[in-house]
Amino acid sequence: KEEEELRQRFMAPPVSGLRELRRRRRELRSRMELLIMETQAEVCRALAALDPGASFAVDTWERKEGGGGISCVLQDGEVFEKAGVNVSVVSGLLSEEAARQMRSRGKTLKAKDGKLPFCAMGVSSVIHPKNPHVPTMHFNYRYFEIEEADGTKQWWFGGGTDLTPTYLNEEDAVHFHKTLKEACDKHDLKLYPKYKKWCDDYFYIKHRGERRGIGGIFFDDMDSPSKEEVFQFVKSCAKAVVPCYIPIVKRHCHDSFTPEEKQWQQLRRGRYVEFNLVYDRGTKFGLLTPGSRIESILMSLPLTARWEYMHTPPESSKEAEILEVLRNPKDWVH
Amino acid sequence: KEEEELRQRFMAPPVSGLRELRRRRRELRSRMELLIMETQAEVCRALAALDPGASFAVDTWERKEGGGGISCVLQDGEVFEKAGVNVSVVSGLLSEEAARQMRSRGKTLKAKDGKLPFCAMGVSSVIHPKNPHVPTMHFNYRYFEIEEADGTKQWWFGGGTDLTPTYLNEEDAVHFHKTLKEACDKHDLKLYPKYKKWCDDYFYIKHRGERRGIGGIFFDDMDSPSKEEVFQFVKSCAKAVVPCYIPIVKRHCHDSFTPEEKQWQQLRRGRYVEFNLVYDRGTKFGLLTPGSRIESILMSLPLTARWEYMHTPPESSKEAEILEVLRNPKDWVH
Repeated sequence: KEEEELRQRFMAPPVSGLRELRRRRRELRSRMELLIMETQAEVCRALAALDPGASFAVDTWERKEGGGGISCVLQDGEVFEKAGVNVSVVSGLLSEEAARQMRSRGKTLKAKDGKLPFCAMGVSSVIHPKNPHVPTMHFNYRYFEIEEADGTKQWWFGGGTDLTPTYLNEEDAVHFHKTLKEACDKHDLKLYPKYKKWCDDYFYIKHRGERRGIGGIFFDDMDSPSKEEVFQFVKSCAKAVVPCYIPIVKRHCHDSFTPEEKQWQQLRRGRYVEFNLVYDRGTKFGLLTPGSRIESILMSLPLTARWEYMHTPPESSKEAEILEVLRNPKDWVH
Repeated sequence: KEEEELRQRFMAPPVSGLRELRRRRRELRSRMELLIMETQAEVCRALAALDPGASFAVDTWERKEGGGGISCVLQDGEVFEKAGVNVSVVSGLLSEEAARQMRSRGKTLKAKDGKLPFCAMGVSSVIHPKNPHVPTMHFNYRYFEIEEADGTKQWWFGGGTDLTPTYLNEEDAVHFHKTLKEACDKHDLKLYPKYKKWCDDYFYIKHRGERRGIGGIFFDDMDSPSKEEVFQFVKSCAKAVVPCYIPIVKRHCHDSFTPEEKQWQQLRRGRYVEFNLVYDRGTKFGLLTPGSRIESILMSLPLTARWEYMHTPPESSKEAEILEVLRNPKDWVH
């Protein structure tokens, strides 16, 4: 019966075990682990339903130092070139230096014998569709706990959802941002504008003077007003992923496209790779962490990408139109 | 008549001007600028001769802060997917911090008012062929001068040539390394073993536990026994580029290949991108330097690349054979 329930609710048994999660069901880290597991399953099912010939490969992995994860990847489908949804729940001891790096504000934490017990969990996903009229989407929701020498627990949440179209479609952009705004507005009207700007600032490819996409929301180090309230906010964001994105995929996955449009998509994929390998904090942190699972971290890279020397789209082309928005982010909801 | 000479010798007029180079012809930086210009022309001509339908686009560019460069790129030819040979000759003022970063040993330099006059020049090139049986080749030879507060000049050379095959061909590997060893041995028998090891250590993709290719030579901060002797060594290395590589291209550019072999090449191209964007010091330095020419720096990226989740070649396949060598570098000349 428990196995039945697992199969219906999740892609694989949770890292901490269902029984253990039930035992400590009031603790926030248990509720967060269930939320990220549910989000993974929801998103995977919604994507698989649109790509009937393909299916998600599910890999569960363990981390020697504590914890593990579940990676779900659909590759080379009809609709999706590469879609990955990854859950990880890890714990152990962090050095003071590593703890400082994890926190974007760089607060100092007092350690006992230089080591800090920590717990980090999250769901993260990148979806690269085949059709150049369907945008790439990324989301990530995560929770951290660190215990200081005196026993006090630092905790915070981070996350975001953002869209990377190959061509601009205003209606899609407005739908995407409005859905995120609604999720934010239920909690505090200040959140959407603040996190929309943070997203535009974060996904910036400095050497190109371009953003990676048309943004969405991004936040880190969120630890107020209260653990419960931030969790409810993160839950609203996680629940908004499917309604944000799936209608856009449905609308365009059968659009016709030219080889030139496919080629432009491949060039934009190249920029995606540049952002992820040169700037993305999560990727860099992962690549530098001994024992991290490289295949799950680099799941975010597209199946194929392209770099042309000195490629410049003609003025007032559709390619120039999206570049303009990547250079000067727009306000989509006012 | 001078224009005639320029056309015959170089791809474009030298950054410092032919007259100026003649005036200060005894100075090492003039001789080095002529060497890198000649190397660029030699390599471009040798490559163009193998790909008769294609030709090099030549871009000259200026740097606002002083100096400039000449980028030669052949893209989407019959034999070469993307071949770039870039010369740059830049000068100006460096911050102490930037000067420290340029020197891999991290010597401290005494600056006047925190600024150090410098001059940096080099030729660098990456050749990505179409046929998976023709390896990718990279080389770079460079020279730096920095003037300290008391007027003393620090100078050093750096460089190297290395090969990245998709499939292992022992005969090619031996030819490549032997040609480099001969160039080194004319100057000092200790150089090849030392710089061969440095190359294996430098082109290491840590998160994969693999080298980028089968190596060659690599060195940095070379400032002894004397300026003249190091220059002669660098000259021998630069002159070895064509004999190292061109015979290998000729031998294999008409080899037949399967779609599976092309796909494996694309996956290896992905690793090339990972190395260049995550680890390569030159690329990172370039991306962080305001006013640097991004298109010339990222010329090193392949036209196309691929990332598959959890790709593992079958045991004792040709793909596993090259991986083995990338994981455990071999001695090719003894």
